[in-house]
Order: sequence, then structure tokens, then C-alpha cells
Amino acid sequence: MIKSFDELAWIDYLKSKVKTDKSVLTGIGDDCAVVSIGKEKFLLKSDMFIEGVHFELKKTTFLNIGKRAVARVLSDFAACAGLPIYIGASVAGPCRQDCKYLKEILAGMLFMAKKYKFSFIGGDTARAKKFFIDIWGMAKTEKPVLRSGAKTGDLIFITGRLGKRDFHRSFEPRIKEARFLTRNFKINSMIDISDGLIIDLYRLAKASRKGALVLLDKVPVTKSPADLYRGEDYELIFTVDKREKRLQKLKELFYPIGEITAKNRGYKAKTYKSLSKIKVKGYRHF
Amino acid sequence: MIKSFDELAWIDYLKSKVKTDKSVLTGIGDDCAVVSIGKEKFLLKSDMFIEGVHFELKKTTFLNIGKRAVARVLSDFAACAGLPIYIGASVAGPCRQDCKYLKEILAGMLFMAKKYKFSFIGGDTARAKKFFIDIWGMAKTEKPVLRSGAKTGDLIFITGRLGKRDFHRSFEPRIKEARFLTRNFKINSMIDISDGLIIDLYRLAKASRKGALVLLDKVPVTKSPADLYRGEDYELIFTVDKREKRLQKLKELFYPIGEITAKNRGYKAKTYKSLSKIKVKGYRHF
Repeated sequence: MIKSFDELAWIDYLKSKVKTDKSVLTGIGDDCAVVSIGKEKFLLKSDMFIEGVHFELKKTTFLNIGKRAVARVLSDFAACAGLPIYIGASVAGPCRQDCKYLKEILAGMLFMAKKYKFSFIGGDTARAKKFFIDIWGMAKTEKPVLRSGAKTGDLIFITGRLGKRDFHRSFEPRIKEARFLTRNFKINSMIDISDGLIIDLYRLAKASRKGALVLLDKVPVTKSPADLYRGEDYELIFTVDKREKRLQKLKELFYPIGEITAKNRGYKAKTYKSLSKIKVKGYRHF
Repeated sequence: MIKSFDELAWIDYLKSKVKTDKSVLTGIGDDCAVVSIGKEKFLLKSDMFIEGVHFELKKTTFLNIGKRAVARVLSDFAACAGLPIYIGASVAGPCRQDCKYLKEILAGMLFMAKKYKFSFIGGDTARAKKFFIDIWGMAKTEKPVLRSGAKTGDLIFITGRLGKRDFHRSFEPRIKEARFLTRNFKINSMIDISDGLIIDLYRLAKASRKGALVLLDKVPVTKSPADLYRGEDYELIFTVDKREKRLQKLKELFYPIGEITAKNRGYKAKTYKSLSKIKVKGYRHF
């Protein structure tokens, strides 16, 4: 999302303007659109991956650009509890060396197609000065989960340790974990960590019109507290009712890191020693 | 498609690399992907609309950018004989004036949603120096038609007059016409005129591994022969077997403009006076 305007106001604006067919169960403004076709539910979604915004050519390879571009959408689908089935890509870029890079980007995408068992179904290519990739696609879902469903008193979990930098490079969106969670528990809300735990939990709380209390000492970070602010961990944040019967099981498998609070309680961080307001770094505009 | 490399070789390359699920009836490399869900068939498609490549900010309005970006995909769906149901958009651009332009682009897209009765289901936004729009979506289809199905001896038709410049501005992709055609006739191949009759008919012939003979005197142009090379007419080119029983009806409603020939006959133009090879202007690289 664009960072210099009010994201929630924009979403409210969108929702007020857009009228959709009754087959659209969840439309514009949420993480994924949810549609019903026949007796099944599907998610639809797109996500951009832009040179100079999301990646720098000098710091990566075309193969990894293809993998990461797709991993981002898969992670979004995971957060909505979807299993990707069809993925397409629009790729624009400068046509250096006979557009050889296209084959490498494609190879990265097809690596992901094989690993995550979706069909890569095409898209569009064009010439542009900078690389611009848009990945779009469709996922099956049994019980879609959105970021906006958190309830006051929900426990907040994350699916894995933050800051595993080598791990990042293996691009493993939490599709299986999301499926396990939604099949076995009542998950009230979920979001993937695309820009960092702190900002993405903030987004979840905001979208749910709630506050949140993060128990900083409980967050499993690998290296330093900076991991709290780092993106592309591909872990999921999810919330469940604290009266959930098999809470113990969840606590064994995942990391409880806090609690959803009433909106007027704000967004706070607690350590064994202190309680403080969280400053959502770099995202003060919305 | 990128113009400086061999488009057909790229498509062959893609087809050799990509393996898809059996629900994918037509995959990468064709105009639209065709998938079966339950008992129905759907088309999936994306199309980019880039500042400096497809449009210039000085020559248009944000409202029209929204309309045209969507019209291009609707025209693609029409060419595959699809009825659009869900459309999404990824929009990147510089955030001038509080991103006010986003509302105008959205208004253009929603104008099209109302007119063509699809649900606008969301997408992604990001900041970039130039405007970059990717429209993606899903259409229903009864009998998908591709550009690659032309047969030697097929008659070539176009759905309307070329070069109606005022008409262009009303952005009317030929969705109804395509539906009428595929419901009432056996259409062997179809393509929309996105870059001009000459280049797009060439693409249809090439994709079908055929030649074509265009009867230039029969092509209904509004102003001048330059209309043959002009894009965004949103008319369709289609081919039917010349033994089609109700050929007369087709000739009354649409314009017969030539014939599909064997590949070794090449791509030729005929007038009452002459027969010549067609030079596919500006697209000599593939």
C-alpha cells in the first residue's frame, strides 16, 4: 500500500464506491477478495514487486526476483487461508540481452509453481525502463480468514521465529501452517509479516478496529529487536479466542506474543520491566 | 508483448517449460488461460497499461486512464469469447496531491464495471515514479476461442469499421458481438485489434501457423489507409469456415475482408489493381 496517505480512509472510500455481484463474499479493501463459484470458495489477489521500491537489481538475481515476487502473493494467500491454484504474472522491464532475464524470472516463478503445486497460467510482458512485476492469481479456500476479524481478548500468535535471514532466502510462505490452523482451530484474524511484525500487527489491529498489547520478551527473535521491524519473514500473525479449548496445543506449536485489546487501549509493548506505546516506525502517515 | 524478440519462439519456450494441472485447458502462451472449475469454463488474463509505453499523461485524463486500462482487458476477454465477471487492478504511480489521481483512475474503472457488469474486486497500490497499471481478471466462457485456431480457407471478418476516432473514446469492447458470434456460429479463431488490423491479423495468422490474404478494398476504414495500422479500435478479427451455412448472415452483419491461406503463401494484401506482400510496419523483429 502507498504509505503517504490514510490507508484505512482509502479502504473505507473504496468500500463506499464499489458495488459487487452477490458471488463476491468479500470485495475490495480486504487482504484477498473472496468469491463463490459453484459450491466452492476462492480467493483472488494481486501484489506488485517493483524495482527501486521492493528490490534492487544489484542485491539480487533474476531467479530470486521471480521466486520472491511469487512468494509474496503466496504469503498473502496463506494469510487468508488459501491454497494457490492459478498464478499469473505481468512483467515489464528493459529488454537487455535479448530479454534473457525473462527466462530467469520465469525459472524462479516455475520453481515456486513446482514447490507449491499451483499452475502458472501466463500473463503479459512489456518494455519499461524499470522492472515492474505484478503477480495475480487464485486460491481455493475452505474458511477464508481476514485481518479485520480480531476480537478484544484474542491471544496473538506468530507462526515462527523472526529474523532467520538464511531462511528468508528459501522463500517459504506459510501455506501449510495456515491450512493446519484453519482446519483445526477457529482463527479470528490473520496477516502475513510482509513489512515487519510491528507494522503488520498494527495493520491487523487497525483493520479490526482494536488495540493490541505485544509482550516483547515473548517474541522469538533470532538476532536483535531489529527483527521486529524487518519484513519478508513470511511468518503469519494470527489471533484466537483465549477460551479456545486446545490453546495448549497452539502454544506448543506456535508463539503467543500478546493480546488484542479494546481500541481505546492503543497499541502498546510490554516487557518484564516496562509498558510503553509502540511507535510504528516510518509509517506515521496513516 | 515485448517487440524486440521473437514472440512465437518465446511462446514455444514457455509452453515447453510450464507444466499445469489438468484443470488448465489452455495455459500460458495463448490469449487467455482457460480453466475448468466445477462444470464451468473460465478465462484468466492480465494486461499492462504503462505510462510512456501505452499512454502519455499529457494526452489523457486519469478517468480515461482507468477506463482504457480496463477496456483493453475486456477486449481481450471478448476476443476469447468471455464475459468478464471479476476484475482487479494493481496501480503504481507517483503520489502527487495526496494520491488524488487514484480516485479518478478508480472512477474510470468503476464506470466500466457498471457498464460491463463485472465486479471490481480490488488489487494492490504502490508508489513508483511512472504510472504503471496491471489489470487482471476472470471471465466466464461457453466456448473459448483462440487466435491460434484459423484454418486454411477460412474467411476473415472484422466486426466493425476501423478508425472511428470518436468511437474509440467511448471504450466499447466487443463483448456482446463475441457472445453473439460464438453462440450462433463456429468461430475458428479470433483476436482483438489492439495495435492495428495489419499487425493483429498477422499475429492471428502466425499463431495459427498460416498465411493470410487481405482484400484491402474490402476493409471498411473511416478516414484513410492509415486506419489499418491504428490500434485501440476494439474491433475483433475472426475467421470462419467458408462452407459455414449461414455465411450470408455473417456478411450482412460484419465485414469479410479476406481469407486464411497456407503458411507458404505468406501474408499478402490484394486490391482491385494489385497483389503485394504486406510489410508489417514497426514489428519486424519477430
